[in-house]
Amino acid sequence: MRISELARRSEVPVATIKYYLREKLLPEGVLTSPTQAQYDDSHVARLRLIRALLGPGGLSIAGVRRTLRALDQPAESLHNLLGTAHEATAEAAAERDDLTRARELIDRLGWHIDDDSRAVQSLAEALDGIDAGGFQVPDGAVDVYAEAMRTVAENELSNTPEGPEEMIRYVVLGTVLVEPLLLALRRLAQQDASYDKFKKPS
Amino acid sequence: MRISELARRSEVPVATIKYYLREKLLPEGVLTSPTQAQYDDSHVARLRLIRALLGPGGLSIAGVRRTLRALDQPAESLHNLLGTAHEATAEAAAERDDLTRARELIDRLGWHIDDDSRAVQSLAEALDGIDAGGFQVPDGAVDVYAEAMRTVAENELSNTPEGPEEMIRYVVLGTVLVEPLLLALRRLAQQDASYDKFKKPS
Repeated sequence: MRISELARRSEVPVATIKYYLREKLLPEGVLTSPTQAQYDDSHVARLRLIRALLGPGGLSIAGVRRTLRALDQPAESLHNLLGTAHEATAEAAAERDDLTRARELIDRLGWHIDDDSRAVQSLAEALDGIDAGGFQVPDGAVDVYAEAMRTVAENELSNTPEGPEEMIRYVVLGTVLVEPLLLALRRLAQQDASYDKFKKPS
Repeated sequence: MRISELARRSEVPVATIKYYLREKLLPEGVLTSPTQAQYDDSHVARLRLIRALLGPGGLSIAGVRRTLRALDQPAESLHNLLGTAHEATAEAAAERDDLTRARELIDRLGWHIDDDSRAVQSLAEALDGIDAGGFQVPDGAVDVYAEAMRTVAENELSNTPEGPEEMIRYVVLGTVLVEPLLLALRRLAQQDASYDKFKKPS
């Protein structure tokens, strides 16, 4: 199909498609003349994915590029694959000099985390942000969060599909696209718990 | 203190402070001459909070404005307070016409959610985003997410501090500043679960 048809089917404007082509997020079409290229269903699917990562996934263009690269590259090992997915979908946080508190928390939880994991940076940033906002997480609450996330993670890992390509999709997309779902569910769960605590007819 | 001292102590550039003043995120200082104002510790604290909401909290300027308004306004009831906090910290999502799937999920979970809750929109958006990215959440996984978030929410509600001002801070800041913590913990928990599954010496 031509670019105009690709725009219609993907619901992405032609100018935006050209931008993604320039940014190499979308593979070039097959040239049928010096000024015209043909696109196929794989371009439609990739455009939808780019939109999902930029929109609900909340990634930047650079984050989308890293994520697509991770999707396109073969995995070395299943464990490394997860690291690649996390690396690709982690938005650039300022490098922290001081990871002490984050590492102490991880040690206390007894979790096995690679030394160069980006998620340790994210944890340090989250803890700093809570401090900077003058908020205090009540004692014990961090452990409740950690335990809940460990339960979630164990279930996610048990669902890993067979086959390297399927697994890459699952890990990369499951990491980034499920985050808005979790946060929406937390807010809804708070509203339901608040109903039980303050409004439920006894 | 003068604005230059306020900039030094809050580590926010003078030009940015002036922008926040124009945007009415920061209250005016007390004028000591037609061109000079005095600021106090409450301005330092408010600047730190704005930075935390914009940075780790991931809010826009408009989201910060709504959040600060919620912090400054008295609560009508404890249950409404939570709605105000969620409303204030929800970033503008496109209004969804079709909330059917989100409502079906909430019904299935048996949760009590107000009809006009913004979190239902967020849930619909998250579900749409997962579809748009060509991802499928495995059967049963949504229930695991929901149950984990319900556990988290119950613990959060049980920790609500006494006193309306303290409670507003807790609900508004706890909602938005804890989100990065939860997401960082999920990624770390995935890495630990992956270690257990693929790398643990047996």
